[in-house]
Amino acid sequence: MSVAYLNGAFLPLEDVRISPLDRGFLFADGIYEVAAVIDGGLVDSASHLARLERSTAAIGIPLPLSLDAIEAAQKELVVRSGLTEGLVYLQITRGVDASRDFIAAPGLQPTLFMFMQDKVVVDLPGVKTGIAVATMPDLRWARRDIKSVGLLAQAMAKQTAKDAGAQEAWMIEDGFVTEGASSTAFIVTDEGIVTRPYSQTVLAGCTGAALTALAEESGLAVIRRPFTLEEALVAKEAFITSASTLCLPVVRIDGEPIGDGTPGPVATRLRSLYVDFARATSVR
Amino acid sequence: MSVAYLNGAFLPLEDVRISPLDRGFLFADGIYEVAAVIDGGLVDSASHLARLERSTAAIGIPLPLSLDAIEAAQKELVVRSGLTEGLVYLQITRGVDASRDFIAAPGLQPTLFMFMQDKVVVDLPGVKTGIAVATMPDLRWARRDIKSVGLLAQAMAKQTAKDAGAQEAWMIEDGFVTEGASSTAFIVTDEGIVTRPYSQTVLAGCTGAALTALAEESGLAVIRRPFTLEEALVAKEAFITSASTLCLPVVRIDGEPIGDGTPGPVATRLRSLYVDFARATSVR
Repeated sequence: MSVAYLNGAFLPLEDVRISPLDRGFLFADGIYEVAAVIDGGLVDSASHLARLERSTAAIGIPLPLSLDAIEAAQKELVVRSGLTEGLVYLQITRGVDASRDFIAAPGLQPTLFMFMQDKVVVDLPGVKTGIAVATMPDLRWARRDIKSVGLLAQAMAKQTAKDAGAQEAWMIEDGFVTEGASSTAFIVTDEGIVTRPYSQTVLAGCTGAALTALAEESGLAVIRRPFTLEEALVAKEAFITSASTLCLPVVRIDGEPIGDGTPGPVATRLRSLYVDFARATSVR
Repeated sequence: MSVAYLNGAFLPLEDVRISPLDRGFLFADGIYEVAAVIDGGLVDSASHLARLERSTAAIGIPLPLSLDAIEAAQKELVVRSGLTEGLVYLQITRGVDASRDFIAAPGLQPTLFMFMQDKVVVDLPGVKTGIAVATMPDLRWARRDIKSVGLLAQAMAKQTAKDAGAQEAWMIEDGFVTEGASSTAFIVTDEGIVTRPYSQTVLAGCTGAALTALAEESGLAVIRRPFTLEEALVAKEAFITSASTLCLPVVRIDGEPIGDGTPGPVATRLRSLYVDFARATSVR
């Protein structure tokens, strides 16, 4: 049974109910985070909480609890779930209005909802097989640095990718890859590891940030510049990072094999480094 | 007390509860409509229902009821509310998943939520005073023809406008006005009434469509072409249309008076024509 948290109370996920006047439901007026749990510990927690603080500040939602208190609640959620591996989902919305108006009533109490998902994070099948990616135009809004729950474009992209036999969508804007629908996009070239620099066009990936730091520590060059679909198709390797997949090799893009069409050494090595980092630094 | 409808049941709005696993809450995976109620009748109902059908079809959400049955439920909502004037809000989401995944589980039962809002629609103060508009970059996604509940950019725009002392935001893209945060934008020039043509960059406004038809019937030219902010600032008049405001004169844009800074004859005349149309054609 899944365990959830709503505004201070722990309860079974199936029992959680909210008002449809919650601005998360009416306006997508909310922020979310997803953190991995490995060996019962929260992975890269400080990074996710810092991004949560940035996102909520960007749209002017006050945090209903301190970051420490949120982390403590997440730890308790993990313990109560009895799970040692999975994902902790967190969503903060601006709260429940008395009626519906684009302008939020002043002084709303934000909604804090969390639950623990039972998912394999470490031994994913994609680690050995690699994953396929399908590309499509990036239809999203202009503030992708804000991790908002306005995810319809991403959900549509994921469905389109699935229909094309792929496991992730890479979104293209002005000829350049922005990012995956729920992941950061990387290619490996003779330069090193290439990934798009931070801006309002992409989310600053927590897993990607930690992984690139590990890459640099191990002597790999990380080049932050936009790359095109054409570059990706002739790259030595490609891979994605996200909290839920950690790091997965991309072996096909739009049906074309990348490198020799099997998981490459760089992505495989970086995933291994990240899993070690996650196990060593996760918090309980 | 507000009356609401959820998946077949009528109940007080304060008592309605949904699961946070509803994809409307987690992914903004839903569509909405707002229709005015005047003299106890639904205004321009067929037009709103046709757009509902287009929007839900565009993102692949099956309608949980026929359009006729939805309209019947809306009529009952109006009667049960005891209100003769206000707004009927409707939201359809893809439904409640067992857990959270970008890819929806197959065969979900869509959520249908509606409620009646007690609001003045006809005798709005802005009719006599006109309203002020503030302009800002259009940050929204690329499929604005779909009336999705992913409204964070619009809510932010409305708040920014309010902070600037304005009642509506006009959003600018590539130098051209796209539309209001929750309305269609019009200017009046020597050519006639100018408004942006339908495309994926704007929502096809129901009220705007009816009002331009009325304008043409009364001999006014309607020119469907994009217009710039600069054109708007020197226009003879400007106005907005929406289901909740019907038609309101815009008398200031970014603090600059439009025309003589008071409601103009064209907007005033068109509002009057629209109110007559609404009263004559609303359904009970």
